Amino acid sequence: MAVSDLRIASPKLGEPYLLTPGPLTTSYAVKQAMLKDWGSWDGDFRAMTAELRKRLLDLLGPGSDEFDCVPMQGSGTFAVEAMLASFIPKNGKVLVLANGAYGMRSVETLEYLGREHVVLNKGDYLPPRGEEVANILLEDPDITHVVAIHCETSSGILNPVEEISEVVYAAGRKLLIDSMSAFGAIPLEASQIRYEAMVSSANKCIEGVPGFGFIIARKDELEDARNNSHSLSLDVHAQWAHMNKSGQWRFTPPTHVVAAFLEALRAHELEGGVAGRGGRYKRNRDVMVAGMRELGFETLLDNRWLSPIIVTFFCPTDPNFVFDRFYELMKNKGFIIYPGKLTVVDSFRVGCIGQMDEHVMRNVVAAAREALEEMGVSDASPPAIALEERAKLAS
Amino acid sequence: MAVSDLRIASPKLGEPYLLTPGPLTTSYAVKQAMLKDWGSWDGDFRAMTAELRKRLLDLLGPGSDEFDCVPMQGSGTFAVEAMLASFIPKNGKVLVLANGAYGMRSVETLEYLGREHVVLNKGDYLPPRGEEVANILLEDPDITHVVAIHCETSSGILNPVEEISEVVYAAGRKLLIDSMSAFGAIPLEASQIRYEAMVSSANKCIEGVPGFGFIIARKDELEDARNNSHSLSLDVHAQWAHMNKSGQWRFTPPTHVVAAFLEALRAHELEGGVAGRGGRYKRNRDVMVAGMRELGFETLLDNRWLSPIIVTFFCPTDPNFVFDRFYELMKNKGFIIYPGKLTVVDSFRVGCIGQMDEHVMRNVVAAAREALEEMGVSDASPPAIALEERAKLAS
Ligand SMILES: Cc1ncc(COP(=O)(O)O)c(C=O)c1O
Ligand SMILES: Cc1ncc(COP(=O)(O)O)c(C=O)c1O
Repeated sequence: MAVSDLRIASPKLGEPYLLTPGPLTTSYAVKQAMLKDWGSWDGDFRAMTAELRKRLLDLLGPGSDEFDCVPMQGSGTFAVEAMLASFIPKNGKVLVLANGAYGMRSVETLEYLGREHVVLNKGDYLPPRGEEVANILLEDPDITHVVAIHCETSSGILNPVEEISEVVYAAGRKLLIDSMSAFGAIPLEASQIRYEAMVSSANKCIEGVPGFGFIIARKDELEDARNNSHSLSLDVHAQWAHMNKSGQWRFTPPTHVVAAFLEALRAHELEGGVAGRGGRYKRNRDVMVAGMRELGFETLLDNRWLSPIIVTFFCPTDPNFVFDRFYELMKNKGFIIYPGKLTVVDSFRVGCIGQMDEHVMRNVVAAAREALEEMGVSDASPPAIALEERAKLAS
Repeated sequence: MAVSDLRIASPKLGEPYLLTPGPLTTSYAVKQAMLKDWGSWDGDFRAMTAELRKRLLDLLGPGSDEFDCVPMQGSGTFAVEAMLASFIPKNGKVLVLANGAYGMRSVETLEYLGREHVVLNKGDYLPPRGEEVANILLEDPDITHVVAIHCETSSGILNPVEEISEVVYAAGRKLLIDSMSAFGAIPLEASQIRYEAMVSSANKCIEGVPGFGFIIARKDELEDARNNSHSLSLDVHAQWAHMNKSGQWRFTPPTHVVAAFLEALRAHELEGGVAGRGGRYKRNRDVMVAGMRELGFETLLDNRWLSPIIVTFFCPTDPNFVFDRFYELMKNKGFIIYPGKLTVVDSFRVGCIGQMDEHVMRNVVAAAREALEEMGVSDASPPAIALEERAKLAS
């Protein structure tokens, strides 16, 4: 499907595009699907839940029948917590591969849960590599589970989860993946990469609105998860067992958000599934990054590590560049960007996901050019320390 | 404001009214408020969150400044779990006053949390009374907290929370209230009844769509709640501290559901606040109950205990009455009713909340009359055992 065939939302005047990693800009059809009320107990809604679970599973390709899909109310963090609590037994030990805010959030979650854990902390963005993971597992036979972040949204890096999966299973351990910001645009096919469970949410690459997450896990893991969870609400086993028995969510589902998500899943299929969606996001990234580099901006990451989800740029060294001003100028031009999360140098992020295509991304670059002019920034290049920082990254 | 002034939604053909205790029938304006995307980090959305919190607090009337409001992603159960985990210290001991499914859900939650607890279990619907609560507290000085259900939605009974509050504080203990299905229609004014915290959700008497709950608690309790919670996601203290510092939710909020809720809160104010909303629901109940009684149906509860939220009716003894058939017939006539939850006799429930007025309720009764005729039920009266059951209830 050619990009020009896509019916990209044209937001009403004054409604900016969200260049953020979710909530993101959704299609009007997705939002219109919320103009109805459903009884959560009723057969019509149960059919919607069944379709949603089946469509998500189908994204795993051949072998998906070994998995089941369990939607979970709340934000993505709730679903991550539910996954960690439900699949890691109380006497398990976890290795968390962290290179940013979301890896560290899994660590924080394990602290709440009281699950034993160690962390491979690679700092702001350096990727955890297979070899170092293999070494840690070799040295610590007590480790039962490894937690990896697929796209670490805080820098935008696409972590090498295939390489990680190989060493984890070679060492006889189990892998859990936080694929919040990647699933639906980056493949996680059951026949290509092994894992026990993964988690994502409604308002990322499937382009729904926020309100629930979902866990996709092997059926035998779902069986074994009984009595693991610390929380009634976040018990994946209980939600799964109840849903399979009754067709209903255990507790009130966000009915309208579910309806919007179904519409989003249908559009996802029409666009060509994971490949089609990922293709559009890659074009968004390529057009946007090329344009920003032309303005003098530098990306944190080399091309090899740039995800098609969100891209981190260094703030220019020019003293006329003030991020809050840049944010407001961009917003007035119709684009909401996102602050950065690096600890060493100032940065900001631009998302590539949501109902946007490369034409929109060209306008983003044009808006950035204007904003720089209005701020009196003639040179968008970053401080030397930023480039030194980047040099640490083996490509 | 007269009832006839209300702009009650007229659902599209084929869209039934939800006579269920939430999700319920919302106004079209509430749903239309979801036709926009918001960046959760952006100032516009932060202003919406601030307005939402302030409007909810205002419903407590004079003295509300001692409280603060903390919205929490997920369904109502998530907010109840968050409240219990956050305000009951790990060495606390809880008395749960249970007379139905939601009381027992709090018990189950405390089991997950590992908090010591005892239960006053009154069965399917008998109300916990002040005197018996006072006696239990007298005999067990270790009890630190009492949990009460405001409207126990599984039977529809309005529990005597004022009477309970008095004995709890007379004994120097603390009260937590699950007011999920009552708040917004039944007063819980800070100057009229004492409690530490209460919880409700978006899709009940405020008439929003489902996707989050909220906890309203005393500020000193919120301060003291640090480090109590078992869960990162459900930590009320952390959510509160973060929100007060940044104006943002800690994790991605259900932006569209929040927008719908704000619209619902504005409509709630226009209708005359808690008094206006409660008044309409009472008229809904009175018209509906009178009509159903005329058809021969009997309510589980005497008038004194009937809430204006949802009403339980006994199923007729006539063998031609089959609930599933009745449900489908009612649905085809435009009304989704709700199965009962009594253990001793068969029952069903009809909700009085949502965008409906007494005219709609008259149509509900007419539909029930037709459905009985179509099933060939000439007498809607319940079995003798049902009336014996009801006689247990001191009025
Ligand atoms: C990789 C990753 N994990 C977890 C989360 C947390 O999701 P939420 O903000 O919905 O709680 C995010 C959110 O962007 C994410 O990108
Ligand atoms: C009194 C009461 N408590 C708790 C709940 C649970 O709320 P939810 O279904 O949103 O999890 C309900 C739901 O109807 C309720 O009525």
